[in-house]
Amino acid sequence: MREVAVVGVGMVRFDQYPQRGITDLAVEAVLAALADAGLAWPDVQATWCGAAGQGMTAGTRVLAELGLTGAPITTVDNASASGSTAFREAYLSVACGLYDVALAVGVGKMTGGSGAAPPVDRREILQMQAMGFLPPAGVFAMRTRRRMHEYGATIIPYARVSVKNHRHGALNPFAQFQKEVTLEEVLQSRLVCDPLTVLHCCPISDGAAAAVVASLPRARRLGARPLVRVAASAFRSEVYSSDGQLGPAITELTARQAYEEAGAGPEDMHLVQVHDAFTVEEIDYYERLGFCPRGDGERLVEEGATTIGGRIPFNTDGGLLARGHPIGPTGLAQVWETVLQLRGQAGRRQVEGATAGLCQMIGAGGVCVIHILKR
Amino acid sequence: MREVAVVGVGMVRFDQYPQRGITDLAVEAVLAALADAGLAWPDVQATWCGAAGQGMTAGTRVLAELGLTGAPITTVDNASASGSTAFREAYLSVACGLYDVALAVGVGKMTGGSGAAPPVDRREILQMQAMGFLPPAGVFAMRTRRRMHEYGATIIPYARVSVKNHRHGALNPFAQFQKEVTLEEVLQSRLVCDPLTVLHCCPISDGAAAAVVASLPRARRLGARPLVRVAASAFRSEVYSSDGQLGPAITELTARQAYEEAGAGPEDMHLVQVHDAFTVEEIDYYERLGFCPRGDGERLVEEGATTIGGRIPFNTDGGLLARGHPIGPTGLAQVWETVLQLRGQAGRRQVEGATAGLCQMIGAGGVCVIHILKR
Repeated sequence: MREVAVVGVGMVRFDQYPQRGITDLAVEAVLAALADAGLAWPDVQATWCGAAGQGMTAGTRVLAELGLTGAPITTVDNASASGSTAFREAYLSVACGLYDVALAVGVGKMTGGSGAAPPVDRREILQMQAMGFLPPAGVFAMRTRRRMHEYGATIIPYARVSVKNHRHGALNPFAQFQKEVTLEEVLQSRLVCDPLTVLHCCPISDGAAAAVVASLPRARRLGARPLVRVAASAFRSEVYSSDGQLGPAITELTARQAYEEAGAGPEDMHLVQVHDAFTVEEIDYYERLGFCPRGDGERLVEEGATTIGGRIPFNTDGGLLARGHPIGPTGLAQVWETVLQLRGQAGRRQVEGATAGLCQMIGAGGVCVIHILKR
Repeated sequence: MREVAVVGVGMVRFDQYPQRGITDLAVEAVLAALADAGLAWPDVQATWCGAAGQGMTAGTRVLAELGLTGAPITTVDNASASGSTAFREAYLSVACGLYDVALAVGVGKMTGGSGAAPPVDRREILQMQAMGFLPPAGVFAMRTRRRMHEYGATIIPYARVSVKNHRHGALNPFAQFQKEVTLEEVLQSRLVCDPLTVLHCCPISDGAAAAVVASLPRARRLGARPLVRVAASAFRSEVYSSDGQLGPAITELTARQAYEEAGAGPEDMHLVQVHDAFTVEEIDYYERLGFCPRGDGERLVEEGATTIGGRIPFNTDGGLLARGHPIGPTGLAQVWETVLQLRGQAGRRQVEGATAGLCQMIGAGGVCVIHILKR
């Protein structure tokens, strides 16, 4: 396997764009990533497009707008992990020596009639509905209650995740919400599913994000900026958890693979992006990714360790909660953020001296993808 | 790149199964392919699932039924070429040395409410509708008329493609239609879009198909049956044709790549499977794949050259017209047929002494995937 660098990233600010189609959004993100790389569309030898529930052969349909060049375009749909999967496929194609330059793009539209389904397994939806819950919030409300019961927590630490991520989002010009919220506002916002108010939940979003990867020799020829390498790409499909909770165990096992591949551990990471569709998730992932022992997650956010400026900042771009979550492209927005941070181009939200970052996404049905990027 | 063998194939007879879901269909095909390979589900190190318009993360959802083992599952949607794309991804993952055993499965359901969209680009649909045509048949009716105009043909040679492929389907216990039709019946069947009657068009189908690929050392350890190797895998995304017709030019360019990779030409092939969603396509592909000069396609079918027993049999399993076309799995049904033929296990439709076969699929939006398999 050859070493691979991320040579360009681009994204459309996540927001609600009822008047824009997925073609328009995807093309803007791709052109931004190509411009960032100093490459043109015909330089791309293969593309993977992450699009969750966006209709047949979405990638080819939208990229036809740029002109089809003969380079293969494959649409992948791994729900919330679609963008991460597209990035992995592009990375592997270069790592294996098939191509020198490959593109990953993610696009998603939830407003305006072509909305995707909620990111939860259909059987879970049926089970939840039978119990009177509204999925996916119902699943995560139960999970929040379970943690509160097990670790004696109040709702406060979960609300603090929302406060922190909105604070990060306020520093990110590409975030859907660029406005801080207070603890009081999180607690007082509209109730979705007890104990979760709306500010515990990620919004309805549209958007696109893209990343160009290249072999190291090709990357070096492209210019002098700090090279960001892909140090690990791990992907597992399995049931979420052996302890009946959604999400964590698969993350633990996938992280183990990623750390081994990178020859690094949590202590070597300087920033982390995770799937915080609901606040409780981020706290679970602190533990499952190895940043604190089981049961200490609430304390980590309360201490401010996961804020920019703290020991290990999580979701520096605002996360799903504030940056937004159009499903397909979200994993590539994580790559966008991590690359900017590792290059020292993250502006007011820069994590000083960051040289390694981890991106984690889960996808409905039992998917976890983790990438580690290093400068 | 390592050599790769197809060690197992399985399919569910294509048909209309209003009472069966995609999980049920996919699992049956996967278990058949694994049994054929002498492998068990936990032996599979990675899976790609071709599913066109079957909803978010379809592959993981359906294969969860077998138990998720940690092996990554990626859903790809390249319209009619979804199954072929899944096969290519699985092949490349083994060729590159990432895995020793990988699985490609395709599943599609057009009946019972979860029906996929017609396999034609949305803009083409809008253009056709504006002209009063019903897509996709309208597109292919125009293309038939154009060929008739250019090459002085009547509708007869196109009707003969249907007669031939239904004759082949009658020999295939996994075909949707296992009944011969006469030239008269094709000409007299219900008119869909002048000059195409319904027997010029592929049916509405449900089904699934799967193939297991393995490295050569692993394949050899699995048993003594003739090894079927992947000799070429070519994939291009581009506009269909420079001459304003749908489909052919992209096939010509992709075939050129495939022949070069296989170190072979049309003269080395013993059987060919193509995307005969409409009869005119098969005749175009005779030419674009290099089996006769431009304008001679009609003559080829009239002479019987493309029938089993003829010089170069096309669509030996009945093709999309008679075997059926559930979109996602169709490319893998072509692999299923070719593998059985190359092993000498095709029963009454066996092409004697076949050692090399080509599989071609196109996908809406501008996709062509060609594989060459060799014994």
